[in-house]
Amino acid sequence: MFRRTYSSALLEEAVAQLSSLPGVGQRTALRLALHLLDLPRENVEQFAGALTRLKRDIRFCPDCGMVSDDGVCPLCSDPRRDRSVVCVVESLRDVLSIENTGQYRGLYHILGGIISPIDGVGPGDLRIRELTDRLEKGEVREVVLALSTSMEGETTAYYLYKQIARFPVTVTAIARGVGFGDDLEYADELTLGRSIANRQIFKP
Amino acid sequence: MFRRTYSSALLEEAVAQLSSLPGVGQRTALRLALHLLDLPRENVEQFAGALTRLKRDIRFCPDCGMVSDDGVCPLCSDPRRDRSVVCVVESLRDVLSIENTGQYRGLYHILGGIISPIDGVGPGDLRIRELTDRLEKGEVREVVLALSTSMEGETTAYYLYKQIARFPVTVTAIARGVGFGDDLEYADELTLGRSIANRQIFKP
Repeated sequence: MFRRTYSSALLEEAVAQLSSLPGVGQRTALRLALHLLDLPRENVEQFAGALTRLKRDIRFCPDCGMVSDDGVCPLCSDPRRDRSVVCVVESLRDVLSIENTGQYRGLYHILGGIISPIDGVGPGDLRIRELTDRLEKGEVREVVLALSTSMEGETTAYYLYKQIARFPVTVTAIARGVGFGDDLEYADELTLGRSIANRQIFKP
Repeated sequence: MFRRTYSSALLEEAVAQLSSLPGVGQRTALRLALHLLDLPRENVEQFAGALTRLKRDIRFCPDCGMVSDDGVCPLCSDPRRDRSVVCVVESLRDVLSIENTGQYRGLYHILGGIISPIDGVGPGDLRIRELTDRLEKGEVREVVLALSTSMEGETTAYYLYKQIARFPVTVTAIARGVGFGDDLEYADELTLGRSIANRQIFKP
């Protein structure tokens, strides 16, 4: 609707690019573009530069696959982390979410996706070889699977389980159940069923 | 909270830049940064490039002050627009909003701000001379003031009125009143008062 009166192909292109971001519509994109237009030129160049550099210069930790500016990431090289536990996740986002809980002190292993034949993602596209290489070193005692409960997640978990079987490690999976603060009546049957089956000793 | 685990200064800088955008918090900024990280490098460079070019290459219409890639803008050069009416607004956003209504066929004049002593903006900082230059040409018959009803807006409107007085033009202001669909009981007294005072012949 706004499009016909942009009166500038530059503005139009900037709005088109901004509205390609997730959760950003035409209206918000225009607001962001006009905001950038109001900034000093150096600021806009810094802004754009930070995004270009992010993609161009980012490196990944050879061990866990986390973003890392050079070499082994701060998590893997932190001497206070428990090197005998490795939590396997799909992506960087999951690492940040788990770190944010402050409840985990082990290391991570980012797969970089999950097995999904429909999307053409097979085991060879994931960092599974890197995981078995880590286990080969004999330092790891427990592998925690923190994958999604989708069919793809379950498939990946099963595949990993088979690959890990030959190592002397315990394979665990994160607990599933009704979330804190969630009403039982609104929980789906599978989740509530899992919550009941996996009930634990009550420690008040 | 997330900050301590970014593990990459590049990611941290990108998130910092993205969260400087209006309405974008740390969480959204991270989501946007990870989205960009997932894109092919060319796409990120196109994205960043569009923003840099927007600021670097944008030009403004010498007549109305609208963004324009070269010379007089499409609005000012459109032969179907009524050149005898000029609507004075604070910013580009206002032009887009008014254009979006499809109710106005005249030209615009963007002041580039309003008189605001607190923010150090005086009449000399606005495109007021450009407005009187346009009136000098004798083509304009009506100047429509579409400024905000804030104290700064009223001050600017009064200042403009004095500047325009010497030209043979009618000065009008956009109508104020209770919005369509708004309940009378929730309208503020000033707005409702204006609506009653400016009542018009009912045309069913």
